[in-house]
Amino acid sequence: MAGRNHLFIPGPTNTPHEVLSAMHLPMEDHRSPIFPDLFKPILADLKKIFRTETGQCFVFPATGTAGWEVALTNCLNPGDKVLIYRFGQFSHLWIEMAKRLGFTVEFHEVEWGKGIPLDDLEARLKADTGHEIKAVLATHNETSTGVTSDIGGVRKALDAANHPALLFVDGVSSIASIEFRHDDWGVDAAISGSQKGFMLPAGAAILAFSQKALAAASTSTYPRAFLSLQDQINTNKDGYTPYTPSTPMLHGLRKSLELLLAEGIDNIYARHHRLAEGVRRAVAAWGLEICAQPGFESDTVTAIVVPADKDAREVISIAFKKYNISLGAGLSEVSGKVFRIGHIGDMNDVSLLGAIAGVEMALLDSGIAIQPGSGVGAALEYYRATA
Amino acid sequence: MAGRNHLFIPGPTNTPHEVLSAMHLPMEDHRSPIFPDLFKPILADLKKIFRTETGQCFVFPATGTAGWEVALTNCLNPGDKVLIYRFGQFSHLWIEMAKRLGFTVEFHEVEWGKGIPLDDLEARLKADTGHEIKAVLATHNETSTGVTSDIGGVRKALDAANHPALLFVDGVSSIASIEFRHDDWGVDAAISGSQKGFMLPAGAAILAFSQKALAAASTSTYPRAFLSLQDQINTNKDGYTPYTPSTPMLHGLRKSLELLLAEGIDNIYARHHRLAEGVRRAVAAWGLEICAQPGFESDTVTAIVVPADKDAREVISIAFKKYNISLGAGLSEVSGKVFRIGHIGDMNDVSLLGAIAGVEMALLDSGIAIQPGSGVGAALEYYRATA
Amino acid sequence: MAGRNHLFIPGPTNTPHEVLSAMHLPMEDHRSPIFPDLFKPILADLKKIFRTETGQCFVFPATGTAGWEVALTNCLNPGDKVLIYRFGQFSHLWIEMAKRLGFTVEFHEVEWGKGIPLDDLEARLKADTGHEIKAVLATHNETSTGVTSDIGGVRKALDAANHPALLFVDGVSSIASIEFRHDDWGVDAAISGSQKGFMLPAGAAILAFSQKALAAASTSTYPRAFLSLQDQINTNKDGYTPYTPSTPMLHGLRKSLELLLAEGIDNIYARHHRLAEGVRRAVAAWGLEICAQPGFESDTVTAIVVPADKDAREVISIAFKKYNISLGAGLSEVSGKVFRIGHIGDMNDVSLLGAIAGVEMALLDSGIAIQPGSGVGAALEYYRATA
Amino acid sequence: MAGRNHLFIPGPTNTPHEVLSAMHLPMEDHRSPIFPDLFKPILADLKKIFRTETGQCFVFPATGTAGWEVALTNCLNPGDKVLIYRFGQFSHLWIEMAKRLGFTVEFHEVEWGKGIPLDDLEARLKADTGHEIKAVLATHNETSTGVTSDIGGVRKALDAANHPALLFVDGVSSIASIEFRHDDWGVDAAISGSQKGFMLPAGAAILAFSQKALAAASTSTYPRAFLSLQDQINTNKDGYTPYTPSTPMLHGLRKSLELLLAEGIDNIYARHHRLAEGVRRAVAAWGLEICAQPGFESDTVTAIVVPADKDAREVISIAFKKYNISLGAGLSEVSGKVFRIGHIGDMNDVSLLGAIAGVEMALLDSGIAIQPGSGVGAALEYYRATA
Repeated sequence: MAGRNHLFIPGPTNTPHEVLSAMHLPMEDHRSPIFPDLFKPILADLKKIFRTETGQCFVFPATGTAGWEVALTNCLNPGDKVLIYRFGQFSHLWIEMAKRLGFTVEFHEVEWGKGIPLDDLEARLKADTGHEIKAVLATHNETSTGVTSDIGGVRKALDAANHPALLFVDGVSSIASIEFRHDDWGVDAAISGSQKGFMLPAGAAILAFSQKALAAASTSTYPRAFLSLQDQINTNKDGYTPYTPSTPMLHGLRKSLELLLAEGIDNIYARHHRLAEGVRRAVAAWGLEICAQPGFESDTVTAIVVPADKDAREVISIAFKKYNISLGAGLSEVSGKVFRIGHIGDMNDVSLLGAIAGVEMALLDSGIAIQPGSGVGAALEYYRATA
Repeated sequence: MAGRNHLFIPGPTNTPHEVLSAMHLPMEDHRSPIFPDLFKPILADLKKIFRTETGQCFVFPATGTAGWEVALTNCLNPGDKVLIYRFGQFSHLWIEMAKRLGFTVEFHEVEWGKGIPLDDLEARLKADTGHEIKAVLATHNETSTGVTSDIGGVRKALDAANHPALLFVDGVSSIASIEFRHDDWGVDAAISGSQKGFMLPAGAAILAFSQKALAAASTSTYPRAFLSLQDQINTNKDGYTPYTPSTPMLHGLRKSLELLLAEGIDNIYARHHRLAEGVRRAVAAWGLEICAQPGFESDTVTAIVVPADKDAREVISIAFKKYNISLGAGLSEVSGKVFRIGHIGDMNDVSLLGAIAGVEMALLDSGIAIQPGSGVGAALEYYRATA
Repeated sequence: MAGRNHLFIPGPTNTPHEVLSAMHLPMEDHRSPIFPDLFKPILADLKKIFRTETGQCFVFPATGTAGWEVALTNCLNPGDKVLIYRFGQFSHLWIEMAKRLGFTVEFHEVEWGKGIPLDDLEARLKADTGHEIKAVLATHNETSTGVTSDIGGVRKALDAANHPALLFVDGVSSIASIEFRHDDWGVDAAISGSQKGFMLPAGAAILAFSQKALAAASTSTYPRAFLSLQDQINTNKDGYTPYTPSTPMLHGLRKSLELLLAEGIDNIYARHHRLAEGVRRAVAAWGLEICAQPGFESDTVTAIVVPADKDAREVISIAFKKYNISLGAGLSEVSGKVFRIGHIGDMNDVSLLGAIAGVEMALLDSGIAIQPGSGVGAALEYYRATA
Repeated sequence: MAGRNHLFIPGPTNTPHEVLSAMHLPMEDHRSPIFPDLFKPILADLKKIFRTETGQCFVFPATGTAGWEVALTNCLNPGDKVLIYRFGQFSHLWIEMAKRLGFTVEFHEVEWGKGIPLDDLEARLKADTGHEIKAVLATHNETSTGVTSDIGGVRKALDAANHPALLFVDGVSSIASIEFRHDDWGVDAAISGSQKGFMLPAGAAILAFSQKALAAASTSTYPRAFLSLQDQINTNKDGYTPYTPSTPMLHGLRKSLELLLAEGIDNIYARHHRLAEGVRRAVAAWGLEICAQPGFESDTVTAIVVPADKDAREVISIAFKKYNISLGAGLSEVSGKVFRIGHIGDMNDVSLLGAIAGVEMALLDSGIAIQPGSGVGAALEYYRATA
């Protein structure tokens, strides 16, 4: 199929050519005296992305899923109770993981399309006077529904309840893209992955831990080995890793950090908001709805609801096979009901307008009546006005 | 500037990632016994792209401009007369080259927007009873105006006049993209470059010569060295080159030929026509005109005329600086009057729709009143109907 | 520092340019309908490398260390007893992991320089009439000492004892390089990593499990999530993965498998033996000893003992800083006593001769009296005779 | 064939991975407002490599052969007389080019193995009282014989004769590697190519011209077009090129210049001398001779004479086919008599020691009696002493 694939899934995101080229290099000795010259500045610069001065960042040669497990198994003890809300596939999977790993999981259902209910959370925390809840697990950006929760609000709820629970945040599809403030929000473990805002291939879990979380880790008795924080701490302090790292991935991350810091983290937030808003304008112009309820709209991914008599999977299939554009599918409860446009990472106006135009073709081909060009027109008027 | 540059100039075109990766390899000994295993099949496969069975293909480590010179200095003798029409910047430059190189250049002006006037040509050839015209120089696709001439028609004019002049064709922005038939059209020298339909970086002049042209070359007394056909003939026969080739470029060309032949040359023509037609539909929907007159529309590049009170350079500047989209400028006589969208090479529907949307923004920002989304809507309806 | 680094550590190994280029490509949708076209043949071809027809192969987005954990936590139950010998840093680390993960670890010390003592093993297995030992953990190639154990012999010991224990083999620095026969040797879990014989960057744990091991996994109650075999089994069957894979790594593995299978697995074994033997001839010509005792010499890495009054770390440091050649350090008990030359992966005679020459310089600079050129001369005579 | 090819031809040379990666990027608009930001600093930094402050540098999208032609056809007039000595294949080819292009070529034979005879030159220049000689053509480093001529001495001869002839220097295999001083030596046209000291693929002729040469160019009537200096001058002044450049090549050159300037041009000279001297020590240890006579030894390539009853082509063939090492062949008069080791570009001690070891194997296999390891031993003792 001639021409490039147009990738608009919410991850892996498009990798800038500078990053791909930075990863294309010979292998190196990860125990050489110069390896720390590569690795130490990465760990330092990651703190600027997570917005932490007091915390510590880590890079595990694994995925975001592993990052969830790092937080759970290092900072908690066997059987500890965690509190989490389920409102999408990724919060669901974190719940399943916590259960499998033997933790006591208190989870509550929230309508898919909404995020963490802060009042409910505060009430539950206040009710937990015995402080049995050892950690609150918060999915910052629920990728499956395009819903962003208010992590600053979660912190306020914890503070209002004067509750000592650790705050673990799944920031896989938010960190390095939309506002995230590790220190200001009192996050204890923040989990991200290389293949989203960091614009790299999958293969690195990128994490930040507060001193409180590290203290908890130092006493935890949960059995762990590959995903041990302590092994990282012991070796990272000298600029090394506990086992063979992917040096190309680190060189890619080095370049990615350079690009992110050159753009400026606040500019990155603003760009993602602007690109997302254009997509939302397009959806409105089509007369369709998005999955996220007002106040919960994600700036990294938009889940669009198809009319009840249509199947979103057909839209996605047509988009891919006929127009070589990759969209995100609805997962689990919203399978067939929504399709998703990822607008995260290395994107700009024209990229998104191409995506919107491609979606228009797929919608029309699927028999969903929209005005051709309407979404693009609405989005580009917004982009023009805000460029 | 975040996000990729969107490249819609009529060359260099977008290089597929497979081609870029094929070029990323260690240097090699170009005199090794295995070098011919790389080079000979390239020369053979090029014949399929030029559509010649009786001709011979060549790759010079230079550019399309050098290709013009190869044809002139190898197949003609000093002072020989050539006939050419001037209807754009590239036909103009070929005229200038022929003059500089001491040939007698008979050239005639044609309105920019039109191509070779076949009746006029036939009349002139018939009038040249002494056969002083040694070569007809034909610009197949005039990149500066988006005009395609009828090379089959040029051959008919030569035949109708029973004129023995050689036929040199500038196919830089046509070959490997729009219909070109070296043998069927009796072309004697066809000149292309790596950076257009071949989807490579600039740096290779890619040529085909008929046996008639090669016979002429064998007796030509024009002084030449670097651009000598004979040196290529002498070494190519064993699979080598007269001087150091760029082996990465050859590996890239190897991969490019694989992609082109896998798609199929007729499919490539059809794809370029379809993509171009979508652009023309968009222009019509905007209420603007294209530079090419009816019957001369190019399928690789469209020059779009801005209203008389506007400056096309501003459209281009806004597109680049504000939206990171690269458009072609109007050159020479049409500078400021037109901007150009290249739709040549590794392109598909969504690429072009992004380009059209980007142009809509730049037009609106330039104060050119168009309906937002109108061009995209018209193009995508055409693409949907013809996909 | 001008000129390339010469990498002769026992991993990461040198990545062929074809593999690096195969990994340099845009990101892809790992849930697309064409993703299985990439992934399924990889899983099938891996079986040819592990030499298993009845087993099943897996690729985890992690490292070889994680591979150890996959075997332990999926196939055993909490507290299960495992038997392992300690004769180097990597057998040591596996012991430590098993302890941390709560298994009952019976381990026995073996002199560093030797491998698994088959008679001792057989005796212990026979003595375990209650079959409390649930798994034998065998380090096939102890990278730290350059020692290869006889895994076929381990199987014979198990059979002689008629013992049902599972056989887990650390083949990180052996598989795809030296003889490994999953089915013939009755291996139950074989663990390798991308950065050794597979000639890729670190970042993939590559595993093979027997049906017996998979059956054990299906009933294991050990808590696990990220490293769950079952999640892989459930998704791999349709050609997908349980969480986002590194598609560049998979494309690299695809290319690596092509190169390995084109060379032929038996030819790869033979090449590694021949290259290793040349290194051993060089060491003998220098009048030095290798760490491995007779019968245990590894064909992927040679640990060379420096005279008692010298520090191997100085040899390594000089080699790196003065000559840009990376050697492996002695680890733990042999730190300072040995340096290591990795001769694994994409290597040939001239590569190794360069390494040997480089080592000669570093030895001489360290005050270790050898005859300049003696090692190279001995090795090249062997290479010439066996090429 | 497993393992990398070891490339020791005198060009193309080994391209550093940083340079290859810098060339791996999307195509760009060479007429964009930011293109000069790339190109202008390249032209400026080239002057540091040529060591000219008053001259001007140029990059033609062609090869070194074209560079010869640029000098001849731009700075001379038709039929002008040039003086040149023939002592190798490349001086021979320059003579042939000058003849073909219609110049009056006075050339004198010099024994292959020697360089420009300065006394003879001075005498001839003094005898040319009518100043019919318009240019002296000097091959700085005759790649075919491994002979370096004294260009400073050529200048002295011109000065001693008070002769106004232009001085054209073929520095293809010297510039950016061994001492070259455009201004100090009063060079008028210096010609290099991308694939030697600049460590890039072939495809760029890199040139420097003095103001005197440029003045001559401004009045020359020799017909030229593609290779016109004036077209470059006209466009380069604004940071552009007269026709489509290879932007990847320019990015590669940008990176190459960074590497060269970071090492320091004097350090580069010293490194090449040291590496070359090691090779010469090896040759002496083998008991063989080099082609270059004393005082003419090249620091970028060594041509080694095989015993009279042996064929150097066999050595080269064995080296390539059996050991995957690429050596340079003897050309023309020394075909079969010499083989060449290129030690130019991105090289270091261990690279060369591998090459020497590989050559030892090929010599022995060819029946040439040398002591195995003797060349390597001699070279490494020299390298150790001088590192």
